[in-house]
Amino acid sequence: MYLAEFLCVSGTVMAESKELTMADVYGQRRERLREFLRAGGLSCFLVTDAASRYYFSGFELHDPQCNESAGRLIVGADGEDWLCTDARYLDAARRLWPAENIFIYSAESALDMGKFFTGRLSGVLGFEAKSVSLAWWEVFYGNIRGVTMRQVDGLLARLRVIKDADELDRMRRSCALNEAMMRWLPGFLREKEGLDEASLAWAIERYFREHGATELAFASIVAFGKNGALPHAIPSPAVSVAAEGPLLVDVGCRLDGYCSDQTRVFWVGERPSDVYQKNLDRVREAQRRAIAAIRPGVPACTIFQKAWDYFVSEGCEHAFTHSLGHGVGLETHEAPSLNARAETLLEPGMVVTVEPGLYYPEWGGVRWEYMVVVTDDGCEILGS
Amino acid sequence: MYLAEFLCVSGTVMAESKELTMADVYGQRRERLREFLRAGGLSCFLVTDAASRYYFSGFELHDPQCNESAGRLIVGADGEDWLCTDARYLDAARRLWPAENIFIYSAESALDMGKFFTGRLSGVLGFEAKSVSLAWWEVFYGNIRGVTMRQVDGLLARLRVIKDADELDRMRRSCALNEAMMRWLPGFLREKEGLDEASLAWAIERYFREHGATELAFASIVAFGKNGALPHAIPSPAVSVAAEGPLLVDVGCRLDGYCSDQTRVFWVGERPSDVYQKNLDRVREAQRRAIAAIRPGVPACTIFQKAWDYFVSEGCEHAFTHSLGHGVGLETHEAPSLNARAETLLEPGMVVTVEPGLYYPEWGGVRWEYMVVVTDDGCEILGS
Repeated sequence: MYLAEFLCVSGTVMAESKELTMADVYGQRRERLREFLRAGGLSCFLVTDAASRYYFSGFELHDPQCNESAGRLIVGADGEDWLCTDARYLDAARRLWPAENIFIYSAESALDMGKFFTGRLSGVLGFEAKSVSLAWWEVFYGNIRGVTMRQVDGLLARLRVIKDADELDRMRRSCALNEAMMRWLPGFLREKEGLDEASLAWAIERYFREHGATELAFASIVAFGKNGALPHAIPSPAVSVAAEGPLLVDVGCRLDGYCSDQTRVFWVGERPSDVYQKNLDRVREAQRRAIAAIRPGVPACTIFQKAWDYFVSEGCEHAFTHSLGHGVGLETHEAPSLNARAETLLEPGMVVTVEPGLYYPEWGGVRWEYMVVVTDDGCEILGS
Repeated sequence: MYLAEFLCVSGTVMAESKELTMADVYGQRRERLREFLRAGGLSCFLVTDAASRYYFSGFELHDPQCNESAGRLIVGADGEDWLCTDARYLDAARRLWPAENIFIYSAESALDMGKFFTGRLSGVLGFEAKSVSLAWWEVFYGNIRGVTMRQVDGLLARLRVIKDADELDRMRRSCALNEAMMRWLPGFLREKEGLDEASLAWAIERYFREHGATELAFASIVAFGKNGALPHAIPSPAVSVAAEGPLLVDVGCRLDGYCSDQTRVFWVGERPSDVYQKNLDRVREAQRRAIAAIRPGVPACTIFQKAWDYFVSEGCEHAFTHSLGHGVGLETHEAPSLNARAETLLEPGMVVTVEPGLYYPEWGGVRWEYMVVVTDDGCEILGS
C-alpha cells in the first residue's frame, strides 16, 4: 500500500512552547504534512473532511450538514496553501487566511475548483477517496487539467493519530469535565429519584454545556436495567431509573474542539446484586489487564486480546460483543481501533478508549470505559 | 437528464387517514419509490444518505458521524427491500424490519454488501453519486456482479420534496415551537439584560429542548449589532446584548424528526433607529411580495425575483447577498432552492423558507424568515 512509505515517520510533539499561537500550531501541522507529501512524491494534497480541514487550518470544525461542506483545503508541498469555501464563510476565512489564497466557489464547488486550480496546481495531487462523494469527484476530476490525482487514504489519519501537546491539553480538559459529571451524577440521581432515561440524558447534557462543553460528542446512552444490554440504546422517556438495577451511562462532550467518551455503570437501589457485582468485577479486571499492556510498539490487537483472554478464562467471552476501543480526538471515532485484527503498533501520543463490556439481554449490561494516552513507557488514563 | 422522466409524477399526499401506522407510512413511501423505479427502468435502488434512509424506512435519522453510516437501504421494484447495517444496530433493525431481509455487515460494508447482493439483485441498480464516497463506491462496484449500476441523483430528493400529511403535521409543530420561542424571547431579554450572545444562544437551545425538541436543526445565529451583517456569525461570549442595536436571531429546532428554521430581528433599547426601521420595512415588504407570488406552477426563481425587484426599486439590492430561501424537512437545507437561477416549478406540499435580508457591514443586518408550504392555490405560513 502507498501508505506504507509514511509509516516510518515518528510522532513529534508540536506546540511545546506556550509562546506559539494557534496559527503557528496549524502552520506546523501543515509543515508536517508537507514532509509526508515530499516523501511520497506528492506536490499537493486536497483536504476534504471537516475534522482534517480544522486540524490543518483552524477553519470550521463542522460542516453545516453531512452533505454540505463548509470548505476544502489544498496544502502544497512547496508551501502554497489554499482555503476554498463559499461566500457565507468569506469573513471567517479572512480572519485565518491570506486573502490572496482564499478561493470562493459557487454552489458548483467541484466544477469551480477544477477550473480554478487548472494551471495553478501541477504534479501529483493527493486526496482521500473516503472523504469525497463520487459525484463531487467525477466533476472535479473531469475539470482539472495538468495534475495527476492519487488516492492516499489514511495519510491524514496517520498524522492526526498522534496527538500533540495542545491537543492533549484539550483532551485532558474534555475528559476531566466528563469525569466531573460522572462524580456529580450519583448525588443527582439520589436527589431526583425516579427520573426517566431521557430526562437524565438531558440533565447530563445540560451539565456538560453549563460547564464549558460546546456540544455532545455523540448521542448519549443512558440505559437502565435490560436496556444496558443494547449496544444502541436510546434514552427513553418511558423508562424510569427507579427500581433496583444497573444504570449504564456512556456519554461524551466536546470541549475546545476535542471529544471525550466515557462509560460508567451505577447501581440504583440499596445493595448491588451479586450478578451485577460479578460482571462489574470481570469488566474492571479485563480493563485493568488491557491497560497494563498498553505501551509503544505493542500491536493494537494485543490489547484487545488481553481483555478477551481474561473473559475466556472466566467463561464469559460470548457476552463481550464488540471491539475493545477506538481512537478519539476531533472525532469520537478515529484511528486506531483496538479490535481483534488491528495490527497498528501503538505509539506515544495515541489516545484510545478501553471499554470492555459484558451483555446479557435478559438482564442488562456492564461496561466501563476510560480514555488513555500512550506515553513513552506505558499509558496514562485521562481525566482522573 | 435521466431525472426528467420522473418530473411528470404528481405529488400525492399520503397518510391521510389517522388509522395508518408509521410502518404503513414508510411502506407507502417505498411503494411510491417503486413506481418511479419501474417508470425509469430500474430494478432496485440503493439508499445511502441518512435522511432518505429514515424517510423510506424509519431507521436511524442520524449517522453516528458524517464519515460513518448507520446503514443503507435497498428498495426493490418487485417489493423485496433490504435493511443493511452493522451489528450495533441489529436490535433496532429488528424492531422495524423482517429479520430475513436484514443484512449485517462488518467494518468492510462495501465489500460485504457487494458480495452479499451478488446473485440476490439483478437488472439495474440505481444510486445517488452524491451520497456515496468514492472509496465506498469503488469497493462496492468492484465486488457486485450481475447488476448494472446507474447514477440517479435527485430522485430521492424529488420524492422527499413533496411533504405528506404526516410530515406537514410534524413541520407545523416544529415551526410552532420556533414561533413560541420567538414570542418568549423579548420578555427573556428584558429580564436578563446584558446577556452575551453565546449565553442567549444557549438559553434559546434550552427553551427548544425543554419544550419537546430533540436537538437544534443547525448551529444558532444570535448576532448583535454589526455581527448581524455576518452570514456566518458565531454567538460570542464576549459580545453583550446590552447597548442599543439590532439583534438578529436565526435558529431552528428538530421536533419529531423535522427541522424548523426561522429568523427574527429585535431592537434592543428604547426606540428603534430610523435606519433599522427602514431596513426592516424593506425586508418585510420584499418578503410579503415574495410570499404573495408563491403558488403551484411558478418557477422558484420568480419568487427570488419578486424580492430582488423590490430591493432594486428601493436601490438596496447590493445589500441582499444571498438566495431567498431553501427547502426544509428532515434536513435544514433541502430542495428546492429559491435562487435567481432555480427553474423548479413549485408544487403543493413543498416547504421552503422565505428569508430576505439586507446587510451593511459597518452597521449590521436585518433578516426575516418564514417557512411556508405551497398549497393548492397559494401558500400557508407555518407555525403562526
